[in-house]
Amino acid sequence: MTNLASDVLDRLEAQAIELPSWAFGNSGTRFKVFGTPGTPRDPYEKIADAAQVHRYTALAPKVALHIPWDRVDSFADLRRHAEEHGVELGTVNSNTFQDDDYKFGALTHEDERIRRKAIDHHLECIDVMHETGSRDLKIWLAEGSNYPGQADMRGRQDRLHESLSEIYGRLGESQRLVLEYKFFEPAFYHTDVPDWGTSYAQVAALGDRAMVCLDTGHHAPGTNIEFIVMQLLRLGKLGSFDFNSRFYADDDLIVGAADPFQLFRILFEVIRGGGLNHPDVSFMLDQCHNVEDKIPGQIRSVLNVQEMTARALLVDAEALRSAQAAGDVLEANRVFMDAFYTDVRPGLVEWRRSRGLPADPERAFADSGYLAAIAEERVGGVQAGWGA
Amino acid sequence: MTNLASDVLDRLEAQAIELPSWAFGNSGTRFKVFGTPGTPRDPYEKIADAAQVHRYTALAPKVALHIPWDRVDSFADLRRHAEEHGVELGTVNSNTFQDDDYKFGALTHEDERIRRKAIDHHLECIDVMHETGSRDLKIWLAEGSNYPGQADMRGRQDRLHESLSEIYGRLGESQRLVLEYKFFEPAFYHTDVPDWGTSYAQVAALGDRAMVCLDTGHHAPGTNIEFIVMQLLRLGKLGSFDFNSRFYADDDLIVGAADPFQLFRILFEVIRGGGLNHPDVSFMLDQCHNVEDKIPGQIRSVLNVQEMTARALLVDAEALRSAQAAGDVLEANRVFMDAFYTDVRPGLVEWRRSRGLPADPERAFADSGYLAAIAEERVGGVQAGWGA
Amino acid sequence: MTNLASDVLDRLEAQAIELPSWAFGNSGTRFKVFGTPGTPRDPYEKIADAAQVHRYTALAPKVALHIPWDRVDSFADLRRHAEEHGVELGTVNSNTFQDDDYKFGALTHEDERIRRKAIDHHLECIDVMHETGSRDLKIWLAEGSNYPGQADMRGRQDRLHESLSEIYGRLGESQRLVLEYKFFEPAFYHTDVPDWGTSYAQVAALGDRAMVCLDTGHHAPGTNIEFIVMQLLRLGKLGSFDFNSRFYADDDLIVGAADPFQLFRILFEVIRGGGLNHPDVSFMLDQCHNVEDKIPGQIRSVLNVQEMTARALLVDAEALRSAQAAGDVLEANRVFMDAFYTDVRPGLVEWRRSRGLPADPERAFADSGYLAAIAEERVGGVQAGWGA
Amino acid sequence: MTNLASDVLDRLEAQAIELPSWAFGNSGTRFKVFGTPGTPRDPYEKIADAAQVHRYTALAPKVALHIPWDRVDSFADLRRHAEEHGVELGTVNSNTFQDDDYKFGALTHEDERIRRKAIDHHLECIDVMHETGSRDLKIWLAEGSNYPGQADMRGRQDRLHESLSEIYGRLGESQRLVLEYKFFEPAFYHTDVPDWGTSYAQVAALGDRAMVCLDTGHHAPGTNIEFIVMQLLRLGKLGSFDFNSRFYADDDLIVGAADPFQLFRILFEVIRGGGLNHPDVSFMLDQCHNVEDKIPGQIRSVLNVQEMTARALLVDAEALRSAQAAGDVLEANRVFMDAFYTDVRPGLVEWRRSRGLPADPERAFADSGYLAAIAEERVGGVQAGWGA
Repeated sequence: MTNLASDVLDRLEAQAIELPSWAFGNSGTRFKVFGTPGTPRDPYEKIADAAQVHRYTALAPKVALHIPWDRVDSFADLRRHAEEHGVELGTVNSNTFQDDDYKFGALTHEDERIRRKAIDHHLECIDVMHETGSRDLKIWLAEGSNYPGQADMRGRQDRLHESLSEIYGRLGESQRLVLEYKFFEPAFYHTDVPDWGTSYAQVAALGDRAMVCLDTGHHAPGTNIEFIVMQLLRLGKLGSFDFNSRFYADDDLIVGAADPFQLFRILFEVIRGGGLNHPDVSFMLDQCHNVEDKIPGQIRSVLNVQEMTARALLVDAEALRSAQAAGDVLEANRVFMDAFYTDVRPGLVEWRRSRGLPADPERAFADSGYLAAIAEERVGGVQAGWGA
Repeated sequence: MTNLASDVLDRLEAQAIELPSWAFGNSGTRFKVFGTPGTPRDPYEKIADAAQVHRYTALAPKVALHIPWDRVDSFADLRRHAEEHGVELGTVNSNTFQDDDYKFGALTHEDERIRRKAIDHHLECIDVMHETGSRDLKIWLAEGSNYPGQADMRGRQDRLHESLSEIYGRLGESQRLVLEYKFFEPAFYHTDVPDWGTSYAQVAALGDRAMVCLDTGHHAPGTNIEFIVMQLLRLGKLGSFDFNSRFYADDDLIVGAADPFQLFRILFEVIRGGGLNHPDVSFMLDQCHNVEDKIPGQIRSVLNVQEMTARALLVDAEALRSAQAAGDVLEANRVFMDAFYTDVRPGLVEWRRSRGLPADPERAFADSGYLAAIAEERVGGVQAGWGA
Repeated sequence: MTNLASDVLDRLEAQAIELPSWAFGNSGTRFKVFGTPGTPRDPYEKIADAAQVHRYTALAPKVALHIPWDRVDSFADLRRHAEEHGVELGTVNSNTFQDDDYKFGALTHEDERIRRKAIDHHLECIDVMHETGSRDLKIWLAEGSNYPGQADMRGRQDRLHESLSEIYGRLGESQRLVLEYKFFEPAFYHTDVPDWGTSYAQVAALGDRAMVCLDTGHHAPGTNIEFIVMQLLRLGKLGSFDFNSRFYADDDLIVGAADPFQLFRILFEVIRGGGLNHPDVSFMLDQCHNVEDKIPGQIRSVLNVQEMTARALLVDAEALRSAQAAGDVLEANRVFMDAFYTDVRPGLVEWRRSRGLPADPERAFADSGYLAAIAEERVGGVQAGWGA
Repeated sequence: MTNLASDVLDRLEAQAIELPSWAFGNSGTRFKVFGTPGTPRDPYEKIADAAQVHRYTALAPKVALHIPWDRVDSFADLRRHAEEHGVELGTVNSNTFQDDDYKFGALTHEDERIRRKAIDHHLECIDVMHETGSRDLKIWLAEGSNYPGQADMRGRQDRLHESLSEIYGRLGESQRLVLEYKFFEPAFYHTDVPDWGTSYAQVAALGDRAMVCLDTGHHAPGTNIEFIVMQLLRLGKLGSFDFNSRFYADDDLIVGAADPFQLFRILFEVIRGGGLNHPDVSFMLDQCHNVEDKIPGQIRSVLNVQEMTARALLVDAEALRSAQAAGDVLEANRVFMDAFYTDVRPGLVEWRRSRGLPADPERAFADSGYLAAIAEERVGGVQAGWGA
């Protein structure tokens, strides 16, 4: 049995992972979106579902919103609703990819009128943040082009800077702008923020409260993601993670499902760089549960992050540094792998028991009957989804 | 000005490219499907649009159907409609990815009942083929799994063989089964027919009238597609192409748009292996016009194929063989590139003029006012799309 | 502590992994080959080093040879030498990539004289096999081209078939030909056996004793390797593995070092398909220890394979099948991951103790002073390497 | 026949491409380096060969050096030798990857003594630059690690900054430091400068005379390289190109050979961003002629760059901007492709004739008998190569 040392337990204690409200709605591919009984019909139901994840794991105290998907009459009311369910509202995500006006861009559009509309949407998001008490405005841009020649990439980059500058200028003093990058999709030739370098260059030009968001599924094949984590922490610009996993493209699978060792390496660099439990670095999920149940999928996700964090915390830092300094390749790798190969699950069961949580959150949730209950209750209405 | 030699013109004369009916409907990504005024509401309108492509290019005499998207009350009537518009109905494509029953597979499903349903769907497609006079049943399977452990890959492969055997057994004597492979999407961990090797092994086990369909967008990054073309022609198993182009994944862009030199190399191997104008090898498009106009997009596509075919026909085969045999790397490459670098467009203008076609089909179509007319006429109803 | 069940221990008992003699010589990149004191100067010293791996692990009873690198005056004598060190000679690997004659091909060359030379080299390898008692002739072909147009891919494929046919015809009745495929390198435009489909098509045309060799580092980015394992086992054509690991290309790192979960999945499919401890499927390493010590690197490698085999054997097959049949994605994945996440190292320590092996083979070898001894003894001469 | 307009001719007039001295020596893969008769034995012979390229093309007035490969007793003498051959000495490239001391790093090494040695090597390079009159010190670092845990990536990044700072501080006022990035190889797990973002962050921290070098073969699969060109020009940090082409990894093939359309797009962005004939942006080749003749390979390379530059200059900028602004995807792409599809070779023949150059430089060089002459003259000695 692995007994996790008290300093490991302390660090796990503070871990918090933000859930995306949209993970509780339906999602799929361009070929098909499968619905499931009980899928939320509105933001209130999404938050109720998200609260289940926190209830069984104590890992997920916040829920991120997506505007306009989560637009409600009163965000103050939604905030109360969240608090009643034991969670808080978190990051606000803007959306400039579902309006016909944005077919050829939003913050980068050639047409001033459409840029204005897109900027205004972000200003509205900032208003929402004041109501929800959110700190971060996360911007993922679906902008780009499909054909060589279609777009003037340079002009778009300049316009992006201008648009972001205006948005950044409107942030409250304790608020931040977090700019996500993505290798490709939905644009297939060029994407306006395709890599961390571009995101970094853009946010560095804005100011201290502009940061980079690293989505673990948004890189070219073979990219060493933990290197980027290291670099962004070194540059003081890692604002948040969007965790998920992938085999091919932006598959948005459950974090840790495709390559748990990669997740371990990422978390090791987070720890190495001082990013664990640091206020500047938000841990967030961004996943699609296309074929599996959503709430259990989210429960597994946060447990995976916790489990790999625990393994990464087990790395014997002194032994590692010593082997690295000595150029002892095999010993350094052995120390590293020893932590990864250690089964921390018994220790995490203890951690949960000590907090009054169920030893097996997935089973406890299954036994709760919640899924059957919402399937029965949530009849009629339109299930939430991306509405593509 | 390039004058194309008469033997080149003869070979171009016989070139025919089949159009996908679904390219005339709306398509997009999981994030958004943009509609356009005038988009067809039914198979009749799709065929009318497809006929426009043939009218201005004389390159596209056939239209492939997708069942159930193109289901009509009377396929005999649809066939007459096509003929009245100067085109024929071509390949019939089955669809087993949009029914809730197929969430975990169709021809490979664990459940005999669902396999039965999927097989029956294919038998229905064969019935349609008898009515439409189609030769080929094209099967693309969206089947696979998203998570390691989710599926028993081996059992699925065996069931796939059984299902295909039953379908194959129902084909008429002049009909064929063409099995497409795809690297990934919509499944993100494993796909049941992910590569040409699997498609080849499956169709080889069926018989002579089972062939492989090569979609140019369905390979791993860096794959030498022309090598596969060569190999399948060598093995006598290249049944058809689905042409399109890609920068990243299955982007389904206009063929030749991403890498015209790759298209040239593919067509060179088609010619080298005796596949040009060979009855066994169907040229088909499979594209999505997410952000560009559909009919003009299809016109450009068939022109791109023709243009790269013409360039590939210009390769001085004797000079090439001689340099290859001599191990003269630079000379062999020079001969090859010389053809690619030659501008054949003036020759193709001549070719069109000699057939009474407009010199510039794209402009002629634009000038025809067709797009404005359908935008005005096709009001109401539901625009055709994938219905994801 | 994990106690491995007796059936798991039984299956581990029979596991044997063949070592490549060349892993004990120097290797590197095109930029630099770093030598280390004590590196073998001849095949006898390589085998002595390989025997150390078996001595401490009981996992590596065979050593594969590479001709001409391992050419000796008397293979019978080398065989005795091996037996005295407690190991056997295994697979014989041909080499047609280091002679100036082979610049533009060997078994596929345009020039009959060079094909003859390459075929004769393989016949010589078969002669060696008779002396060494080897069963398998492994053929990896470095052949291909760097520039489009340089080579006639189709003619080369046909010549490859002819050359292989002659070699196959010379095999003894209990001998096999195993054809390796590789995505790219050293050729950068086309490779004559680039994928499993080509290797399969070629060996299927030869006969029952021609099989495919799957090198885990020889695939396109993102390839699902365990799917290929499944397919080749299903087709009865998986002859052997070349184990190693990679992040980018054919990195030839220690097996399991880059993605232990992938190794686990591969071994699971080996077990699922009946390939574990099956006489038809050879487990071999093919690695380069560019920056780490070679003997310890090989020790870690065989231990990694054993460890992931043990984890894969822990998968609760019944529970998995039940969840798969029920379409319970999360439960099937949970059962699968549960085995992967289980720390089997305590059980393997027990396994070693019960066989009189050191609990920690890496430490035991380090403590033995062998590396220091060979560094002192092996002075003068030319260290073995690839001689690029 | 394409007549190139006078403004196009003017811009081509000023084009200069720097040749790498090492391209005239032998190179290959880790598997084999093939030599050819006449290969230079020293820097003087390399420069003589390089001068041939310029003689027949008027495109290559400079030769880049690689230290220590090109170390000579007197660089002043080498400079005179170059001038006598009609060329100048250009960029100085440092080399910290072939000394045993650098096995685990150079500018990033844990050991202060080895960092000192590596820094001193660069200071020596600056001394050389003063003698050769070179402006640019190009730094490509082979540093990284092969195994997770082997190296402390963060510490290495910090040490890299320190080392570069000292080197940068020693530059003369008209000299520059250009930092190259590379995705992978020779390190296979992490590379210390793997992407443009890292190179940019490092050089931005140094000062105005520190720039990024973009090698077209050093990116992840699928990377949109022209986007990076655009971004670096926008940020004022594109110092130089290393041109070559690739299908898979860092194949170092002849520029334009793998994807001429990509080269066209890159050059279009160079023009768009004001980088053509701009003093800040050096055009350089970095290629390996593993299987083809070296001097003719370099001749083809500079002609390819010129040809694609000419095509890119043909883009009708006004028509393109107009279509882009209008969101006319197909028209914008048409304008773009129209330039790419235009055969500029007749115009370039005219350009050469007007300068007293041979119409066909490759043929003229072949007819000159130079290759036969050096094969006869350069007997004995050691052919230049990488000495891996």
